[in-house]
Amino acid sequence: MFVLDSRLQQDCLVLGNFPLCQLLLSKDANYPWFILVPRRAGISEVFELDAADQQQLWQEASCLAGALKASYNADKMNVAALGNVVSQLHVHVIVRHHHDAAWPAPVWGKCPAVAYGDEQVQAIRQRLGELKLEGYLEA
Amino acid sequence: MFVLDSRLQQDCLVLGNFPLCQLLLSKDANYPWFILVPRRAGISEVFELDAADQQQLWQEASCLAGALKASYNADKMNVAALGNVVSQLHVHVIVRHHHDAAWPAPVWGKCPAVAYGDEQVQAIRQRLGELKLEGYLEA
Repeated sequence: MFVLDSRLQQDCLVLGNFPLCQLLLSKDANYPWFILVPRRAGISEVFELDAADQQQLWQEASCLAGALKASYNADKMNVAALGNVVSQLHVHVIVRHHHDAAWPAPVWGKCPAVAYGDEQVQAIRQRLGELKLEGYLEA
Repeated sequence: MFVLDSRLQQDCLVLGNFPLCQLLLSKDANYPWFILVPRRAGISEVFELDAADQQQLWQEASCLAGALKASYNADKMNVAALGNVVSQLHVHVIVRHHHDAAWPAPVWGKCPAVAYGDEQVQAIRQRLGELKLEGYLEA
């Protein structure tokens, strides 16, 4: 039975669901920072998913990353499965700009998190809805 | 025409080739730090590869990560496509241990690189050969 890790619950907002993954927004307004969490219990590494789930995970990540790159006019997308702190498998999909707070460094541990206002989160939800991502349903 | 990025050439050793990707070893003995580079020209983002290449990339990454986790008795594998500095698409596949120099932080920019000795590199080449990775040919 899949339950979202408590640290991810604390540090993120649930935005919606793809066929395999829950889509989260990291509570750090420094960057449009999204996280995909496959709704499978007891998985820490991508290669622990079965082949069909792996394919679905990367399809969802590519769909999301491609749409976000265009929507935010990103300079680069960062896609990463690290999991040193939270062992539940999760894939970061982060929009990066040359002018962002951490550029060109990776975002982890670089800058203090900046809180989102309610209106900013609402704008992100609306943006995602308008992207019409394949198989995505808002929470 | 694919040519390996000059910064990757400088910072890495070429170990061999999978059907799609060149396999590199980062010149930093702090961690067993491998990099997969799809042999496709002009690609910066995973989603710019065609669907078959994307599937092949993640298959090679999973094959490699799974085998390395077992071989090194890793606590976690880090798999990441960042590319903020080197725009040529490359995927980091890094073996992490609780006792490594950067744990639990990501490795980028955390600790000064430690040079490999020739014998250490030879041992890594031999280990990879013994893993009998599907489709892998040593350079």
